[in-house]
Amino acid sequence: MGLSLTDIISICDFSKKDIELVLETASQMDSLPKEKKARILENRVIASLFFEPSTRTRLSFETAIQNLGGRVVGFSDPAVSSTSKGETLSDSIRMVSGYADMIIMRHSIEGAARRAAEVSKKPIINGGDGANQHPTQTLLDLYTIKKEFKKIDGIKIGLLGDLKYGRTVHSLMYALAHYKNVEVFCIAPESLKMPEEIIKDNSGQLEIKETKNLHEFLPELDVLYATRIQKERFADEFEYAQIKNVFILGREILEKTKEQFRIMHPLPRVNEIKQELDSTPAALYFEQAKNGVPVREAILSLLKGVEK
Amino acid sequence: MGLSLTDIISICDFSKKDIELVLETASQMDSLPKEKKARILENRVIASLFFEPSTRTRLSFETAIQNLGGRVVGFSDPAVSSTSKGETLSDSIRMVSGYADMIIMRHSIEGAARRAAEVSKKPIINGGDGANQHPTQTLLDLYTIKKEFKKIDGIKIGLLGDLKYGRTVHSLMYALAHYKNVEVFCIAPESLKMPEEIIKDNSGQLEIKETKNLHEFLPELDVLYATRIQKERFADEFEYAQIKNVFILGREILEKTKEQFRIMHPLPRVNEIKQELDSTPAALYFEQAKNGVPVREAILSLLKGVEK
Amino acid sequence: MGLSLTDIISICDFSKKDIELVLETASQMDSLPKEKKARILENRVIASLFFEPSTRTRLSFETAIQNLGGRVVGFSDPAVSSTSKGETLSDSIRMVSGYADMIIMRHSIEGAARRAAEVSKKPIINGGDGANQHPTQTLLDLYTIKKEFKKIDGIKIGLLGDLKYGRTVHSLMYALAHYKNVEVFCIAPESLKMPEEIIKDNSGQLEIKETKNLHEFLPELDVLYATRIQKERFADEFEYAQIKNVFILGREILEKTKEQFRIMHPLPRVNEIKQELDSTPAALYFEQAKNGVPVREAILSLLKGVEK
Repeated sequence: MGLSLTDIISICDFSKKDIELVLETASQMDSLPKEKKARILENRVIASLFFEPSTRTRLSFETAIQNLGGRVVGFSDPAVSSTSKGETLSDSIRMVSGYADMIIMRHSIEGAARRAAEVSKKPIINGGDGANQHPTQTLLDLYTIKKEFKKIDGIKIGLLGDLKYGRTVHSLMYALAHYKNVEVFCIAPESLKMPEEIIKDNSGQLEIKETKNLHEFLPELDVLYATRIQKERFADEFEYAQIKNVFILGREILEKTKEQFRIMHPLPRVNEIKQELDSTPAALYFEQAKNGVPVREAILSLLKGVEK
Repeated sequence: MGLSLTDIISICDFSKKDIELVLETASQMDSLPKEKKARILENRVIASLFFEPSTRTRLSFETAIQNLGGRVVGFSDPAVSSTSKGETLSDSIRMVSGYADMIIMRHSIEGAARRAAEVSKKPIINGGDGANQHPTQTLLDLYTIKKEFKKIDGIKIGLLGDLKYGRTVHSLMYALAHYKNVEVFCIAPESLKMPEEIIKDNSGQLEIKETKNLHEFLPELDVLYATRIQKERFADEFEYAQIKNVFILGREILEKTKEQFRIMHPLPRVNEIKQELDSTPAALYFEQAKNGVPVREAILSLLKGVEK
Repeated sequence: MGLSLTDIISICDFSKKDIELVLETASQMDSLPKEKKARILENRVIASLFFEPSTRTRLSFETAIQNLGGRVVGFSDPAVSSTSKGETLSDSIRMVSGYADMIIMRHSIEGAARRAAEVSKKPIINGGDGANQHPTQTLLDLYTIKKEFKKIDGIKIGLLGDLKYGRTVHSLMYALAHYKNVEVFCIAPESLKMPEEIIKDNSGQLEIKETKNLHEFLPELDVLYATRIQKERFADEFEYAQIKNVFILGREILEKTKEQFRIMHPLPRVNEIKQELDSTPAALYFEQAKNGVPVREAILSLLKGVEK
């Protein structure tokens, strides 16, 4: 049985079965011999359309395609896209869906991926559309937790930093709501609190606590998921400067945490996590980034046979 | 028998036999199984040098290369080329012809491809040189007509829009002149008329009529080939604004046309064709874009064995 | 026996044995059938990270990877890298070393490659770090001399142009010092003389003569290695203008030279060598550029099995 989806647009479109299928397939990808993997997308061309630059997402997707034996066409820079000649997104997607077998896209405008999926004859994979959705990030976050803790049920996870604008943590909430007895600790300053609506949507499934104090729940946490506070999100530079350095993680936090405690981060970090933590067992963020490859391999191989 | 050419610079270099060979080969490409196709350029490296950005042309060429099992090196952005360090085009081409088995290039300067062909030891394929030539566009236009109408002889085609500066329609005139009983209707405002010289060159072979009125010959047309009116071509913004919206195609034109009537456009369109036409049988432009792949596959495979 | 190195950072890290191994392997690459070559990096993904643009180095590395059957991910433009989001080089490299099997990088900052090698779990190949090192350029220079003259021992080589800032000629000095009876003629204006320190370092192994006069030693030379005088290196535009045209090579120099005399240049040239020399037997620079491919193939294949 395959995915119930023909396009990967939002984590909210995934049933629990879909999520579990991706995680299992990713786990198989992690142990499949290179030669076997390299047959999965043989003779397929995948378009990688980055209307907005993103090295991490692009490189891990393109590595995944290459590992599966697929071939990449596309662009990494909007200046090179035909958008600069005034072409609409719909027309660009229609064109590329005439060339390629699947399309990965990142775009600065919310809803762009959904719109693309409507006009494309080939599966669309959303690699991030503005502040909206980035479903493969959420899937790799789940995969990282499952791989590290052998389960997602019952996990105690802190979400730290910009919980208001951070799409990563929003999506993660919705995804975790599929699992049992998950406890979520929302740790943010007043002005960057998790939106009411998201808490309401998930409070039936998740046990959610809110705090402004990083240290309040530290000893309980299995995972602390830190996020970048993006300057771009603030209208006021001064507000940004005030908030920026509030939640910087250093070695001292490890004095209060469990032995199994791990730190995750979608990366790139700027200064949210000090380098002194990198060599500790708590640092799970580079492993997490690496998990982007098997998870994206899983998505690509599950969408291979899909007819729209 | 192969092409009589070692480089693809201008459609005017093609004999009718050459054109027919490309069209036939493209038709074979369209039906060849993927696995067989993927052997044609196995272990060949093709350079894709876009000194001027062009997504459509680049992506369809690179898709064609990938489909044939070839490998791509190159750049999509002049800022990344060594031209920015003051290197001449000749030196860049000499260098790349030492690396790759074939070179596809697009350049903003007229005559750049011809110059490149003179210094390159490997075949050059012109992907557009300024306002001058874009031969693979013309070949895919012919292929689209032949595939749709099962013939080119006797076709009645309207050319619409910027006939003065539009290199696509100029090249198409020269190419159509190889066929019998073709009727061409040049539909343009006074300031964007088809140049006298091009009409003179082809009036022996083509039956050419000129008009400013889009509706005058509509009921006779098999194909209406619309073109983009490029702002860049106008010195005067005001003149552009006046002309821009004169020939916008909407659903109402279908009331006057034959059942077999089709609309072509080299794309990207800006507003020359309303989206309401996209879902009608008349809309041939996305199919036309898609035909860029088999036509470019044909060109690449025909040039494979060429020694210069 | 393999290389004694796990990363390719500086030519100064190479023993003579290492250098000879690269040159021999490059020579094998030059004669290996395409199909055999294409197995060497099968199912490997190589990252090509150009934090600073460089077409020649990038295209020849990527051609080498493709020829060996490897697959490329990366970027050619710093604007597209995540550095633009404030990520440190170390983090970028850690991330990519989680995706790829080897990393080629170019960076504008001296020491960047060494720093990258410290944090990367995969071999790093330095494709140039600022004014510092560009070891594969030196290896291809040596390969070109050896291929042309069947030896490096006893060669008489003139180094011309910007000997003060030219990293190419500095590295070449250190590399040539491994060979016997090599004579080096440093030909430069006063303000661009070869640094004392480099002369001192190598005067035990090399016989070094200095002059401001291009013609003084011309009849003795086997090779004249000309370099570009880079505007970027001068604080003062006027000084650049004065010096720029001093050492322009034209056909007339061939009246004084040996029959075997050859001109090399790392390219791109701006106006240091007149085009009139291109068709003479003395012009070795395009051949030299072409040799970048087998030399880089050699490096890549020698690093294939390396565990760090």
